[in-house]
Amino acid sequence: MAHERLTYGVHAVLAAVAQGSARALWLDAKRQDTRFSALREAATAAGLPCNEVDRKVLEEMLPEVRHQGVVARCVGAKALTEDELALFLETLQAVPFLLVLDGIQDPHNLGACLRAADAAGVQAVIAPKDRAAGISPAVHKTSSGASETVPFFQVTNLARTLDLLKKLGIWIVGTTDQTNQFIYHIDLTVPLALVIGAEGTGIRRLTAEKCDLLAKLPMLGSVESLNASVAAGVCLFEALRQRQFR
Amino acid sequence: MAHERLTYGVHAVLAAVAQGSARALWLDAKRQDTRFSALREAATAAGLPCNEVDRKVLEEMLPEVRHQGVVARCVGAKALTEDELALFLETLQAVPFLLVLDGIQDPHNLGACLRAADAAGVQAVIAPKDRAAGISPAVHKTSSGASETVPFFQVTNLARTLDLLKKLGIWIVGTTDQTNQFIYHIDLTVPLALVIGAEGTGIRRLTAEKCDLLAKLPMLGSVESLNASVAAGVCLFEALRQRQFR
Repeated sequence: MAHERLTYGVHAVLAAVAQGSARALWLDAKRQDTRFSALREAATAAGLPCNEVDRKVLEEMLPEVRHQGVVARCVGAKALTEDELALFLETLQAVPFLLVLDGIQDPHNLGACLRAADAAGVQAVIAPKDRAAGISPAVHKTSSGASETVPFFQVTNLARTLDLLKKLGIWIVGTTDQTNQFIYHIDLTVPLALVIGAEGTGIRRLTAEKCDLLAKLPMLGSVESLNASVAAGVCLFEALRQRQFR
Repeated sequence: MAHERLTYGVHAVLAAVAQGSARALWLDAKRQDTRFSALREAATAAGLPCNEVDRKVLEEMLPEVRHQGVVARCVGAKALTEDELALFLETLQAVPFLLVLDGIQDPHNLGACLRAADAAGVQAVIAPKDRAAGISPAVHKTSSGASETVPFFQVTNLARTLDLLKKLGIWIVGTTDQTNQFIYHIDLTVPLALVIGAEGTGIRRLTAEKCDLLAKLPMLGSVESLNASVAAGVCLFEALRQRQFR
């Protein structure tokens, strides 16, 4: 039997509509901005009922969360696939801001990465299906709820996905110490997919070859790298700073 | 019987000299910059033998680490005390850049904080002695060696220590969501102690009252905060960016 659940937040609901797992939407009737217009259009195009309700109704449906004015009833699994990614990217209204995790294996690191991605306004997180952590209860917990709100795509071939992103005009920026270029000298306001490598080994050779640019963080002390989720947070917030605070 | 160990790196050795735990130094004879002059002066003032050696000798002593040109043989415990902090700060040659952890209890978070502090060039990490994680094997491991190189001070009364820092002209910047001020709008190039709160609860009221400034990170998604070590990393690297990359 299909598992039913409530999803909330603009990004997560848009993703659920795109992947076909949404069955019905409840929207704050007062929200009429462009993001909500896109939501209503996508839902109508998919033949889904859109219930325009008072904000209080949403708060009764999901009392403990910041629902951002939209809730969807969904069926099926949470992780999205490669095919759904293309569709998702086509519905994106903002300048793309994606996080690619090249083989993060520790669930706590994945959870902390999803949490940082959510906070920084990342629209989707992409990771390989094999030899990498997927969504699990430990990830749910460490992500502080972000695994429910940030669309998470698991792809079978990461190199092919990076090619797809490049075709859509998205710049692939890989973080590695194998470069002289500091991240602070790179323009992160462009359509962006930021690639973070696995704990210990960093980004893989094939992944690095697909990157348009490589960037490093300064390492002033004796350690050679940061924890993967800390590195992700530092780089994502540098992109956010460049986009909104200068 | 006193436990003997080798410590390395300029900051860690300076701390060991300041606390009186260093017994002898080995220095790369070719290093004659101001940081090494300060090291030699401090060691000579403390009556410690300074062995001027070829870099290869250091590599033989500690083959696996980036010793930064200096190794010290030390005795005694690793965590430093409140009394030693004042002495340590007096010997600081650079603009103070300190991290204060207001009650981090998870050893993995403490380890990741120490690792980020080391990478960002923080000179010392300060934490309360009670109801907070101390240096343990789990911390050593997660810190990726940073717990060996970043001086870690455990103080009995954090509020009193913040007063001491203020007397020395150091600005106390607390991170919290209880402010309208974004960290990107604050000058972090001043003598700085950055305060990060505990997981979940944030910085304590008494700590917040001691802060000269409060700063927040933008939270664009649904989560209300970052993992403590991710928050520390983002804020420390923003300070580093302001100091060296603009």
